[in-house]
Amino acid sequence: MPQHTDAPTALKVALLGGGTVGSQTARILTEDADILRDRVGADLELTGIAVRDTGATRDWQADPALYTTDAEALVAGADVVIELMGGIEPARTLILRALAAGTSVVTGNKALLAQHGEELYAAAAATGAQLSFEAAVAGAIPILRPLRDSLGGDRVTRVMGIANGTTNFILDRMDSEGADFDDALAEAQRLGYAEADPTADVEGHDAAAKAAILATIAFGAPYTLDQVAVAGITAITAEDNAAAAEAGYVIKLLAIAERGRAADGAEGAVLRVHPTLLPREHPLASVRGAFNAVFVEAENAGELMFYGPGAGGAPTASAVMGDVVSIAQRIVRGGPARLRTPVTALPALDPAEAHTSFMVVLRAADQPGVLRRVAGVFEEHGVSIETLRQVPSEREDAPGASLRLITHRARQRDLDATVEALAALDVVHEVASVLRVEGN
Amino acid sequence: MPQHTDAPTALKVALLGGGTVGSQTARILTEDADILRDRVGADLELTGIAVRDTGATRDWQADPALYTTDAEALVAGADVVIELMGGIEPARTLILRALAAGTSVVTGNKALLAQHGEELYAAAAATGAQLSFEAAVAGAIPILRPLRDSLGGDRVTRVMGIANGTTNFILDRMDSEGADFDDALAEAQRLGYAEADPTADVEGHDAAAKAAILATIAFGAPYTLDQVAVAGITAITAEDNAAAAEAGYVIKLLAIAERGRAADGAEGAVLRVHPTLLPREHPLASVRGAFNAVFVEAENAGELMFYGPGAGGAPTASAVMGDVVSIAQRIVRGGPARLRTPVTALPALDPAEAHTSFMVVLRAADQPGVLRRVAGVFEEHGVSIETLRQVPSEREDAPGASLRLITHRARQRDLDATVEALAALDVVHEVASVLRVEGN
Repeated sequence: MPQHTDAPTALKVALLGGGTVGSQTARILTEDADILRDRVGADLELTGIAVRDTGATRDWQADPALYTTDAEALVAGADVVIELMGGIEPARTLILRALAAGTSVVTGNKALLAQHGEELYAAAAATGAQLSFEAAVAGAIPILRPLRDSLGGDRVTRVMGIANGTTNFILDRMDSEGADFDDALAEAQRLGYAEADPTADVEGHDAAAKAAILATIAFGAPYTLDQVAVAGITAITAEDNAAAAEAGYVIKLLAIAERGRAADGAEGAVLRVHPTLLPREHPLASVRGAFNAVFVEAENAGELMFYGPGAGGAPTASAVMGDVVSIAQRIVRGGPARLRTPVTALPALDPAEAHTSFMVVLRAADQPGVLRRVAGVFEEHGVSIETLRQVPSEREDAPGASLRLITHRARQRDLDATVEALAALDVVHEVASVLRVEGN
Repeated sequence: MPQHTDAPTALKVALLGGGTVGSQTARILTEDADILRDRVGADLELTGIAVRDTGATRDWQADPALYTTDAEALVAGADVVIELMGGIEPARTLILRALAAGTSVVTGNKALLAQHGEELYAAAAATGAQLSFEAAVAGAIPILRPLRDSLGGDRVTRVMGIANGTTNFILDRMDSEGADFDDALAEAQRLGYAEADPTADVEGHDAAAKAAILATIAFGAPYTLDQVAVAGITAITAEDNAAAAEAGYVIKLLAIAERGRAADGAEGAVLRVHPTLLPREHPLASVRGAFNAVFVEAENAGELMFYGPGAGGAPTASAVMGDVVSIAQRIVRGGPARLRTPVTALPALDPAEAHTSFMVVLRAADQPGVLRRVAGVFEEHGVSIETLRQVPSEREDAPGASLRLITHRARQRDLDATVEALAALDVVHEVASVLRVEGN
């Protein structure tokens, strides 16, 4: 391999974090050192692993002499820094210190990127250091690089991801076994797919961080968590699932980033995470259990999907090492850092501007004129109904009829107003659920 | 974007070929010139389109002054050459001329790469020019770059692709409608999914070229067509499909490149294309119609799948333009060409060394002792039977019983010997079909 004149024969790699992914990254750096040397053209020398407790039990045990609590010293001497500590601090300060010194950084820290991305991207650009984070979204699945490079001559219009394995496992169980949310969550916890405190997963916050990162690559601006409209899956009932299944849909928690238009016609990006009805024949519908997948729509490429394990030590470490090898090759060969392909930065739009279809379930009185009045409310707000199905209520505590409506694409803002007006109708007992529909 | 001191403000792009993909590439270069300028940091100036007939009707019509029959002159003045003529000559000579002059080339020419890849890769390496060919495999689906870069820190063990849309369409129709091969082919031809002469598709030659290219990226050596064991789909019957469906499988034509071992234990690559039984729940099994998908197994990443349109003008042009933008960015920013990540080149193995499972359908006499004798032949050759099902023959012209056996993983060589011995048994009327099984 051609190398520039003063190409190094070894690169010092500092690893911050000794958890599941950190341990597997250390294992690959150690066990696959020969392969990595061949590919990079220099040794990747693991100089240390910064941990909180050097004596802790690990997934994979490196040479005990490598563990240190002095992360700052480790970063100071490194050619490449791998940050897998998670959390905001001290990860943020350590990464900023490395980038300021011109040292390239690989991180899988989605929460940090979704909250402080702008600061980190600016720090990298200032010194020409590289900041890579393929592992931050959908584990081992190569998605950021294809979005940036492979679609570099195209225009991405929408990205929809099943980006959280815990919620996909739970929804899959609810769909396939008719389970309640609580039972499916308990099973996920028992099998290790959900944490004791599942809030970040089931409330959609983890998926929202991934939506912000995917949007940053696809639409250019450093979007943050607070620009993502988030709804989790805790309110999904077995009844919602049954209604979805009957209409030919499956419910998935999707992280969506898409081009849209503001009320004044200006182009922007809409970011949202919510339980979504997908037609059973949609490629994302067959993503089962704890797997992840990202569905991409681009003007010329059409519809693409990327599928694989969304978490796990070795898969995520594979994504980390792909970034490390790319950076190391560039250091050895010379030449400027690989920059983010500049794409025109779209402003984040108010999620109320999103256009989707909706499934609305109402409990209403079983009497003449109800259908006409309900349909009138939709018409008034400019929301067009695609299908309507009336079924007698099965709940003894809620007599009357259950109305299940699926709309054509409508603006979120108009639907919100429709739902408010429906709830105010005397013949409507309850708006039982409102779920968005995509992929039709 | 940082640019090196003498960065050009415009790059001359020569387009060879004005067919479906060529026209769409010209359209993108023309209509999306602003976006491309933003991303590259310089204008991409389409200097001409080399065609055989400047007056022909096109999918998309560029400025008439751009069409020329003088491909050589166009190549001589270019900064980037896009070759979309197809065929071996004059494409090969024109690409070699460009590479020799240090001009980077983007091509979608799978036949050329699968036959003359070694010569082309060497010509690029000699001058430091780049040769990119994402469009040559699976149309718009980003697969070569993820294999090379995203998995640059991992070890790919197997690649299995539905890489030919025509055959997938035909097999899909046979599966979903119980159609015969001839009827499904006729329908594919009527709908424009199959050519008037469908040989290259249905005999597996197109998929074999893609297997060679995928293997080249995954396993390092410039594999050629003649190293791929090829079987097409013309012999697949409605009965095969029924037998597969009954056992829970679907038949797909797969292009497979995998690590294997020679008889002496040396590691190598096995390349093969054949109709394959896949369990219905396998991610590749749900790839319908003319879509493509590539399933990748890697040591750390686990199982990944890449899905999308495998052909079509705009999707394939999107892949071409992703390569063009990457090359143009590198020219503008400076630095050496992006080389193929060196992976240890594995020698191509004799495909008889492949290990797979098999479904064997026999027509045999319906008499005592047949099962014992058939099982004895498998045992003799070291091939272990997983399931066996005996059904009365439904064919009046072939009385007796039909035996459907699925084996555990066995060596192709041993299975071949087993089949030969089965055919020689007096109680066996016919070995009706032998199909490989993957994904269990």
